[in-house]
Amino acid sequence: MTALADVLATLAARRTESLAELLEFASIPSVSAQSQYTPDMLRAANWLMARLKQCGGGQRGGLNVELWATEGHPAVYAEWLGAPDAPTVLVYGHYDVQPPEPLERWNTLPFSPTVLGDRVYGRGVSDDKGPLLIAVQVADAYFSATGGLPVNVKFLFEGEEEIGSAHLPALVAENSERLRADFVLSADGGMWSAETPSLTVSARGLAALEFTVRGPAKDLHSGRHGGSLQNPLHAISQLVASLHADGRVAVEGFYDGVTERTPDERSATAQLPFSDEAYLAQTGAPGTFGEAGFSTLERQWDRPTLELNGLWGGYTGEGSKTVLPSEAHAKVTCRLVPGQTPERIPALIGAHLRRHLPPGVTLEVRPSEHSASAYHIPADHPGRRVAREVLEQVYGAPPLEVGMGGSIPVLETFQKVLGIDTVFFSFAVGDEDIHAPNEFFRIPRIAEGHQAWARYLDRLAHHHE
Amino acid sequence: MTALADVLATLAARRTESLAELLEFASIPSVSAQSQYTPDMLRAANWLMARLKQCGGGQRGGLNVELWATEGHPAVYAEWLGAPDAPTVLVYGHYDVQPPEPLERWNTLPFSPTVLGDRVYGRGVSDDKGPLLIAVQVADAYFSATGGLPVNVKFLFEGEEEIGSAHLPALVAENSERLRADFVLSADGGMWSAETPSLTVSARGLAALEFTVRGPAKDLHSGRHGGSLQNPLHAISQLVASLHADGRVAVEGFYDGVTERTPDERSATAQLPFSDEAYLAQTGAPGTFGEAGFSTLERQWDRPTLELNGLWGGYTGEGSKTVLPSEAHAKVTCRLVPGQTPERIPALIGAHLRRHLPPGVTLEVRPSEHSASAYHIPADHPGRRVAREVLEQVYGAPPLEVGMGGSIPVLETFQKVLGIDTVFFSFAVGDEDIHAPNEFFRIPRIAEGHQAWARYLDRLAHHHE
Ligand SMILES: [Zn+2]
Ligand SMILES: [Zn+2]
Repeated sequence: MTALADVLATLAARRTESLAELLEFASIPSVSAQSQYTPDMLRAANWLMARLKQCGGGQRGGLNVELWATEGHPAVYAEWLGAPDAPTVLVYGHYDVQPPEPLERWNTLPFSPTVLGDRVYGRGVSDDKGPLLIAVQVADAYFSATGGLPVNVKFLFEGEEEIGSAHLPALVAENSERLRADFVLSADGGMWSAETPSLTVSARGLAALEFTVRGPAKDLHSGRHGGSLQNPLHAISQLVASLHADGRVAVEGFYDGVTERTPDERSATAQLPFSDEAYLAQTGAPGTFGEAGFSTLERQWDRPTLELNGLWGGYTGEGSKTVLPSEAHAKVTCRLVPGQTPERIPALIGAHLRRHLPPGVTLEVRPSEHSASAYHIPADHPGRRVAREVLEQVYGAPPLEVGMGGSIPVLETFQKVLGIDTVFFSFAVGDEDIHAPNEFFRIPRIAEGHQAWARYLDRLAHHHE
Repeated sequence: MTALADVLATLAARRTESLAELLEFASIPSVSAQSQYTPDMLRAANWLMARLKQCGGGQRGGLNVELWATEGHPAVYAEWLGAPDAPTVLVYGHYDVQPPEPLERWNTLPFSPTVLGDRVYGRGVSDDKGPLLIAVQVADAYFSATGGLPVNVKFLFEGEEEIGSAHLPALVAENSERLRADFVLSADGGMWSAETPSLTVSARGLAALEFTVRGPAKDLHSGRHGGSLQNPLHAISQLVASLHADGRVAVEGFYDGVTERTPDERSATAQLPFSDEAYLAQTGAPGTFGEAGFSTLERQWDRPTLELNGLWGGYTGEGSKTVLPSEAHAKVTCRLVPGQTPERIPALIGAHLRRHLPPGVTLEVRPSEHSASAYHIPADHPGRRVAREVLEQVYGAPPLEVGMGGSIPVLETFQKVLGIDTVFFSFAVGDEDIHAPNEFFRIPRIAEGHQAWARYLDRLAHHHE
């Protein structure tokens, strides 16, 4: 039996406990955005460190595990450098999760992970605790079966991905020597569909801001004062409405520098198995909507966006309250494509908002640290080639090469600070309701992910030889 | 000593306990809009019944007090009909209060009424528990000092004013014989300014609705889906923005039938002591804003409005959540003037919203029961004349005759069902932050109100003779 076969057999024997580990990990409410969960963030980091230390039976010669403090939530780091002639891969993931709200829309408790059929439901099971654990479990199996790993591996699991990875650039810069690697293999991301394996080769960037419109110094009675003062809810609606026209972003300069894709690239996207009808059935939306002249996939992967994520003001409770509110608020995120920068876009939006501000109110714009540049991995990158080969082996068909509408801010950090590319190798699927109620993870993906990660490390070692 | 002098002396001797009674009454959180307060609504009604029964020392010959059930919150009724040759006045008020939200903006606890200087702070102290108690305390003083009242008095205190008095029309209709009176004297309302006594001679009407815009069946990740589906927050902003243009309501047909005021009426309003500068200083708004060609007072009293009271959707908590929300919501109230009806206006708005609905979302419009017609009391009404005379006597100057931006739905009920007019006789002031945090009532107004109500009943008896 080869070493790889031993590793695969070990993983197969541990399938039940692998799922049990995910249930345990996902029961820790490691919500990075809400301060009441800060103690749980530390619990999750400790849980993850303990799991990593277990790799190699906790013996010398196993993983060297460390907690790396930041000004925010800490990162968990682990390394094994016992293959001096082999490549080094930096495995990335995150142990923080999105807030669970709105709680009333969950069918199970978000932090009591629940198995229903071949799915496990819970906040973070798909993004990113399930995919992250797969990588750790494969490393553990290698230690058990072979006493080491086929390549050098460094794990970096952060705790601030869902709030924009604000402290990661500094952390990576401080530790750039220790993090040196040939490329990043990301356990975060997610495949495009449950039916066909896919490789994500691009991601949109991100820029975020919040703004507040203020009218009277305090809430007023809308009967007495209505009609004689600007209502901040009217003003913010006008501002938000001014941000789009005919499905396009109407902010002056927003599309400046955006490079059009080549006819070849566009036709590759057009040939992917995708139907608007199935998409609408899946999302329940009454129709697609967006920029004229682009397909739904192009609108998701290749065109920039400006989306409101939250809008509120006045009385939002049960019944009626005749109030002319003092303030109204909006949260905005943009998805960026090559040619746009996360520094310039919020500045353009701020200028647009100030230019379009209705009379009788004041405006405060707060850009967010939450940002990322758009990313594309080169077609001939060795890590991308190995991924393609391994996925074909596991699934029996070559993966589709797809874009990603979302953003992973660390892509930019790894490229700018460490000078290395990132290969997405997550076994989550994009339809698993991440960032929404009833997030789930497909249990068969654990076995597929185990196989793929085991083969990936093995093939990377041989590819290099 | 005259009977009136005895009554005034009795009231003066009871000033401290009068305030103490208000503190006790206002500590009961009788919020009609929120179902968790339903038990407190009943507590408030019971408190008020007990206070009314105390009038005349609880002896036979005092007030006859009853609880009148409705399909919603009950009304409290009390009567004394011992002056067969004198007029009958129906005293109106309400024991329900607005919700206390936003709680974090209160400097004191909303339901722990707190005296600070010459003010008492608490939800409902000004609207309408303080003004209502004044009328009850005056009746009590008459019973103590004279063994009866100078005119026949019927008290009707409802528990649904702040949610639109939905069940009052039926209640008044069912009891129209018992409620028969010469006119209504309303303890609800409020004076225009703390400096100058005023008589409110008109009120705007009210129409209300809510609407919801729906896109995808569930919240989606705005990175993955943004740009390819209509965002309900964008759509609702466009809808709200479409409702106004240049400070005017842009709903087709909204101004149809609105009668312009005469040059004389407009010049009377223009001569009232009012400055935009002082108004902005008082409200803290950066500027006035409204329909071109009308003054601030005209915009508040004589022109119809359409105001958003609440607007919300998506993530509104701490931090960031990249969500493309499934739904967005808006609450709207309109203030109406003569010529508009509370039935037609919501229908026009619904039609406008449907006509302007952006693609990719669906719309649900829910008209509210909360409605009232606009109202004007005739200039030669005897109840209005007596009020003018009494206020001049108490304050040493004739009262200003002013409009009211807000609405009292029961005005219409009393006119339509009982065929009688309503005279506003409240000692609240419009700047007392009713329907907002830190609602307060001016303590000296209790003594002024006592004097005025005592004189009013006395003069009404003699006026008639
Ligand atoms: Zn993630
Ligand atoms: Zn009131």
